[in-house]
Amino acid sequence: MTASAQPIRVTVWGENVHERQDRGVVELYPDGMHTVVAAGIAEHLGGRALVRTATLDQPGQGLPPEVLEETDVLTWWGHIAHDQVDDELVRRVCERVNRGMGLLMLHSGHYSKVFRTLMGTSCNLKWRSEGERELVWTVDPSHPITEGVPEVFAIDAQEMYCELFDIPPPDELVFISSFAGGEVFRSGCCFTRGRGRIFYFSPGDQEYPVYYHPVVRRILANGVTWAYRSDGVRPESYQSANAQPGWIDEVVRPASP
Amino acid sequence: MTASAQPIRVTVWGENVHERQDRGVVELYPDGMHTVVAAGIAEHLGGRALVRTATLDQPGQGLPPEVLEETDVLTWWGHIAHDQVDDELVRRVCERVNRGMGLLMLHSGHYSKVFRTLMGTSCNLKWRSEGERELVWTVDPSHPITEGVPEVFAIDAQEMYCELFDIPPPDELVFISSFAGGEVFRSGCCFTRGRGRIFYFSPGDQEYPVYYHPVVRRILANGVTWAYRSDGVRPESYQSANAQPGWIDEVVRPASP
Amino acid sequence: MTASAQPIRVTVWGENVHERQDRGVVELYPDGMHTVVAAGIAEHLGGRALVRTATLDQPGQGLPPEVLEETDVLTWWGHIAHDQVDDELVRRVCERVNRGMGLLMLHSGHYSKVFRTLMGTSCNLKWRSEGERELVWTVDPSHPITEGVPEVFAIDAQEMYCELFDIPPPDELVFISSFAGGEVFRSGCCFTRGRGRIFYFSPGDQEYPVYYHPVVRRILANGVTWAYRSDGVRPESYQSANAQPGWIDEVVRPASP
Amino acid sequence: MTASAQPIRVTVWGENVHERQDRGVVELYPDGMHTVVAAGIAEHLGGRALVRTATLDQPGQGLPPEVLEETDVLTWWGHIAHDQVDDELVRRVCERVNRGMGLLMLHSGHYSKVFRTLMGTSCNLKWRSEGERELVWTVDPSHPITEGVPEVFAIDAQEMYCELFDIPPPDELVFISSFAGGEVFRSGCCFTRGRGRIFYFSPGDQEYPVYYHPVVRRILANGVTWAYRSDGVRPESYQSANAQPGWIDEVVRPASP
Repeated sequence: MTASAQPIRVTVWGENVHERQDRGVVELYPDGMHTVVAAGIAEHLGGRALVRTATLDQPGQGLPPEVLEETDVLTWWGHIAHDQVDDELVRRVCERVNRGMGLLMLHSGHYSKVFRTLMGTSCNLKWRSEGERELVWTVDPSHPITEGVPEVFAIDAQEMYCELFDIPPPDELVFISSFAGGEVFRSGCCFTRGRGRIFYFSPGDQEYPVYYHPVVRRILANGVTWAYRSDGVRPESYQSANAQPGWIDEVVRPASP
Repeated sequence: MTASAQPIRVTVWGENVHERQDRGVVELYPDGMHTVVAAGIAEHLGGRALVRTATLDQPGQGLPPEVLEETDVLTWWGHIAHDQVDDELVRRVCERVNRGMGLLMLHSGHYSKVFRTLMGTSCNLKWRSEGERELVWTVDPSHPITEGVPEVFAIDAQEMYCELFDIPPPDELVFISSFAGGEVFRSGCCFTRGRGRIFYFSPGDQEYPVYYHPVVRRILANGVTWAYRSDGVRPESYQSANAQPGWIDEVVRPASP
Repeated sequence: MTASAQPIRVTVWGENVHERQDRGVVELYPDGMHTVVAAGIAEHLGGRALVRTATLDQPGQGLPPEVLEETDVLTWWGHIAHDQVDDELVRRVCERVNRGMGLLMLHSGHYSKVFRTLMGTSCNLKWRSEGERELVWTVDPSHPITEGVPEVFAIDAQEMYCELFDIPPPDELVFISSFAGGEVFRSGCCFTRGRGRIFYFSPGDQEYPVYYHPVVRRILANGVTWAYRSDGVRPESYQSANAQPGWIDEVVRPASP
Repeated sequence: MTASAQPIRVTVWGENVHERQDRGVVELYPDGMHTVVAAGIAEHLGGRALVRTATLDQPGQGLPPEVLEETDVLTWWGHIAHDQVDDELVRRVCERVNRGMGLLMLHSGHYSKVFRTLMGTSCNLKWRSEGERELVWTVDPSHPITEGVPEVFAIDAQEMYCELFDIPPPDELVFISSFAGGEVFRSGCCFTRGRGRIFYFSPGDQEYPVYYHPVVRRILANGVTWAYRSDGVRPESYQSANAQPGWIDEVVRPASP
């Protein structure tokens, strides 16, 4: 928690498939959605963060061990290529989250293998892509992710996501969205797994310029700082252990005053 | 939890002021809103519940000690006369909730002294009474209060309530409502205080026939069974105590196998 | 929630390996731990429950589709044979939990494939089997599982389980245990996944007669009634769906008054 | 969340009664417990915080409006003089918490008027002052307050606090303590009220040198940074408001891209 000279190492992972094949998406995001997400985060965090991008088509699907192990907070956007992500990469990402890496799961990433593995539910939902207005309401104004965010803001055109969103009850419910048809969606949800903090944020379909929206960018940056832990990612997962009588006395001795 | 021969003793408390002075309300609820709420609960629980009503204009404001002390679950509706409720009655109700009485706080009861005392927040919200459609969405389908309730249902005309609803984060968020203007509201919220279970449910303005709605009645009944505890209300609140060495051995002896 | 003529169909699944090979366990549980767990539940629920047992060595590992699909609440005890449970059975159990089946995960079941899949964490912990006294403290006296349970009770000899227990934060933390060495453990934890309610309860090692303990049996029975939903298990999981404009009007029409 | 040039304005409030009349306390804390708490926070936060102290015997009971209104995070220690705190001061503190001020409630402050008002429960507990060893266990390793804190640490001599601790279920349970007699206590609990974050931390009796303990000091500092919000305390509480049709369009216009 104390001030640290170390910048937050953020890796913005993007599937980057729509951006190369769908004409409308190419026009909106000519350099890929990941570059715009990364720019949004960097814009707010400045020198506090060291932001890089990674994509599915790169070696190791963009997240070979040497990249993942140098990531403090990972953001993930995927949609059409969820199935192409290697199970071994999914395992490594989930394991690193449990060791303390922060994770921002964006929009259609709700159905990624990573998110479904961490949640233990189907993560299904209802949807409709008609470019309708989304209103995003803050419902937990005490949450760090809401700092500097208005009580309600509008995204003029966005895909509709609707309940029942089949996730476990969030540890913290930060935002609720409504759509033109009267639909509602828990659009900002926090979870923890092991030492890792996870923020799911639903605005951000590939067909609309959502990641250029100033409040969305602020929320992404807030999500990164919330998910980051200053004491680092542990080198390994929690292990089971046989704790013999007296073990506590060994452990607590150095901490005594 | 085991089957009990004892019926649930429910007291439906109503302020009963609008119903005697506002023409539209008199027409909708000629015998008071409390009688309709009581009928809705009895309709679903049958012999499992013993339902009576109480109103502000009765002796002891309807809840003298002999009534309150025979209540397992209390439902509360108030609006225009919050300030007339005696502080001593507020204290007794809150204290009995802490001892294990269930509480259903209905609609404008969000601003009652009882609810604000139990929450520790202002319980303020935004509102508009234009007879708009309210859609009520289930967001926690694992919750007992949702049993037999559709994933979404409509109330054709209702007062609009909107976030920011200034309550602590609910222990369980069961329903979210949306309104015609795009507003959202956490309309079904569970809390606990001491041994008592509290369900806040927002549908139910005096100007609309909400308490005749079949799904609303089902939810009220579900709320009562959820809030009821089969092992009864404790005779007194939890007290602080000086626990001398060895006290546990005294306490646990009878429970050993 | 309303009184139902249908009994709760409980299946008590036991690994049943220690009970056939370890001399001490055979003496404690000559007919298997599952029979004692089943008897404890039946003792409290009487005609409200229809309790049967199932074991790993049976066809379909005790839970072929026709058995699982007739189970409202499943209890699970495993330890030495976690790896032998078929992945397909694990998938079917987790999927049925998400559709609304209750699950009681007992003691060393914390490391079963089923539990780890539902949690998304390692579920590791520290342990020591020295027959020490476990004290079980109620910390959420409002919870249905605590009805009729003393504020603290003792299990005279039990395996020690200790934090850090690597689970997601429980939706409801009901019990905390302490052990002779000063260790603590979150011994009663509630979670939900989809429509299903999950209760993890740690007391119950094969080397000690824990499932004969009267309070433990009461808690098991309370766990079953808490995890049971009267409106049944859905025939299928939540699915994603494209919700076209106007879909809500179709859905809500029948529910209007 | 973004880096701010503004230091966190911390006010450490102490009752400061024991320190002037009880010989043992005078020896442990010759300048008052508040000075030691303040030093512990300053030691870790350095230039990030501007720490001052305030005591009951000062004008305005140490927290006249001009002091309270310049406080971002308040820490509170009281015991023997809870009743002497003016109800009006209690009201102002609770109201400012709801507007966004952070609050650290320490040890016997569990029974202060401020804490009981914010919780809505009795906040009672069991206790014994025999100078026993307290073990403090981290149970939510994802929480910011645990950064740099060992999984378990010992306080060699401390007052025993024991469940049932009559608080609402914490939004986040960070620490559980055990004591020599087998007692357990939820010793680190987070709550929110309105925009304010509240951390209750139980170690710290006046008869033992707990606030000199290096890990305790680290936790106090972590608590301050967690409770602090970079976007400031709102000038007034949330108010109810009549929201006329179209109000959202007025509100969201400036935030559109």
